[in-house]
Amino acid sequence: MNRVERHASFGGRQEVWKHQSTTLGCEMKFGVYLPPAAVEGQRCPVLYYLAGLTCNEQTFITKAGAQEHAARHGFILVAPDTSPRGPGVPNEDTYDLGEGAGFYLNATQAPWAQHYRMADYVAQELPTLIEQNFPATDARGIFGHSMGGHGALVTALRNPGRYRSVSAFAPVVAPSQVPWGQKAFTAYLGADVSAWKEWDAVELVATAQERLPILVDQGETDEFLRKQLRPELLEEACNAAGHPLTLRRHAGYDHSYYFIASFMADHFAHHARGL
Amino acid sequence: MNRVERHASFGGRQEVWKHQSTTLGCEMKFGVYLPPAAVEGQRCPVLYYLAGLTCNEQTFITKAGAQEHAARHGFILVAPDTSPRGPGVPNEDTYDLGEGAGFYLNATQAPWAQHYRMADYVAQELPTLIEQNFPATDARGIFGHSMGGHGALVTALRNPGRYRSVSAFAPVVAPSQVPWGQKAFTAYLGADVSAWKEWDAVELVATAQERLPILVDQGETDEFLRKQLRPELLEEACNAAGHPLTLRRHAGYDHSYYFIASFMADHFAHHARGL
Repeated sequence: MNRVERHASFGGRQEVWKHQSTTLGCEMKFGVYLPPAAVEGQRCPVLYYLAGLTCNEQTFITKAGAQEHAARHGFILVAPDTSPRGPGVPNEDTYDLGEGAGFYLNATQAPWAQHYRMADYVAQELPTLIEQNFPATDARGIFGHSMGGHGALVTALRNPGRYRSVSAFAPVVAPSQVPWGQKAFTAYLGADVSAWKEWDAVELVATAQERLPILVDQGETDEFLRKQLRPELLEEACNAAGHPLTLRRHAGYDHSYYFIASFMADHFAHHARGL
Repeated sequence: MNRVERHASFGGRQEVWKHQSTTLGCEMKFGVYLPPAAVEGQRCPVLYYLAGLTCNEQTFITKAGAQEHAARHGFILVAPDTSPRGPGVPNEDTYDLGEGAGFYLNATQAPWAQHYRMADYVAQELPTLIEQNFPATDARGIFGHSMGGHGALVTALRNPGRYRSVSAFAPVVAPSQVPWGQKAFTAYLGADVSAWKEWDAVELVATAQERLPILVDQGETDEFLRKQLRPELLEEACNAAGHPLTLRRHAGYDHSYYFIASFMADHFAHHARGL
């Protein structure tokens, strides 16, 4: 594991590391913010952030304004890339499949199955790496945006006991029912839609073993709201299952990091209740 | 003048506009953040931010985390590009001369003199545009980073009475004495160094008519500190002239926007005392 960036930030340190991922079979980068408490050697809880389509490990650390909150709360912040990448990793010349579009699942179909195992990477390999190499406790929270909001919800719901808090900005809540998810799931998981259910938050919430409270923020002028995101489907599923959900709709806000940054403080407050 | 972006942000709006600049003879873009008070129609003071080499109007608005502070203080934030750009604008295939490297002066030498008039653009054309088209008062502050820190200091010092507050992150304080400045000034102003003095903060502070207090933050592990920035030259000049300067040196901080974001709240507090 090699450090490729280090910057002082709000009394702590924003770093970027690269490592050879055994799960993904390629070199991966991730951002890690160490709050002042961690720099002083104290063990801190870890909040994982999963980014959306087209993003990489740089997006969140440069645009979301999260470090000031992590510094204040004493959270380590970890931001992985959105897919495997590089020589030998299958790709498509499109923004919503292949590199930058891993959808945080374990693919079962050729040619994707060998490398596209972001679910195992995010929930297993990466936390092990973080907890062995940084002053981290095993208290974990997870959040994300859009495709990464889907990733955060699904990762928490599939791994009861592993996360203490979960939230999402403008998540894809029902990939099986929307174009982005249908395209990706058909490629990664195959045409049999019964295999899609275990990667769909709206399906998973119905049978969740653990009722971790979910916070979702959604902009009402988000260009993807009606076709790709459809938070009302999560609202219905949570109501039906008795799963605690706080869904906030914000007039005038779009899908950008300007929206994410505006509500970042509230997401940290939500995670602070769990961590 | 046409709006090319609009995003809700911290209860206000981050916008990007383009317009044909008569001063620069090309189309220019600028970012403008309208705090909630301005969106509600109240007239607000305006804080201008000048970015550094290689940057454009996007850099500050996406990376600096300034909107939350502007929202709280009720300041309009304006972030222009760093040079004229586009067809017909002279350029060089290098990062420190031509496009992205306007140095916020009025060039006198061919081929630069026709378009490279960023001093007049920033101090005259842009404020007129802002004050005519947005709910702005004529209370102005100015700050910037690196080449833009030089721009902020020089613009305030050359225009007594026009700005109520000034600050800089890691500024080039004495362009006449450092490689970046010497290269740019030779090209834009010619080889006669006597013409350089009116664009050099260390020279200008000696004879300033107005003693506007200056705040400068500087990272101690900034890779450009010793060769290009040299804040000790500003410290000596301010001491000699009796010009109020607060120069803060921060251990571990570099030249990046992680540094800028970390001290943004303090710069807003400084400008709030003047605005």
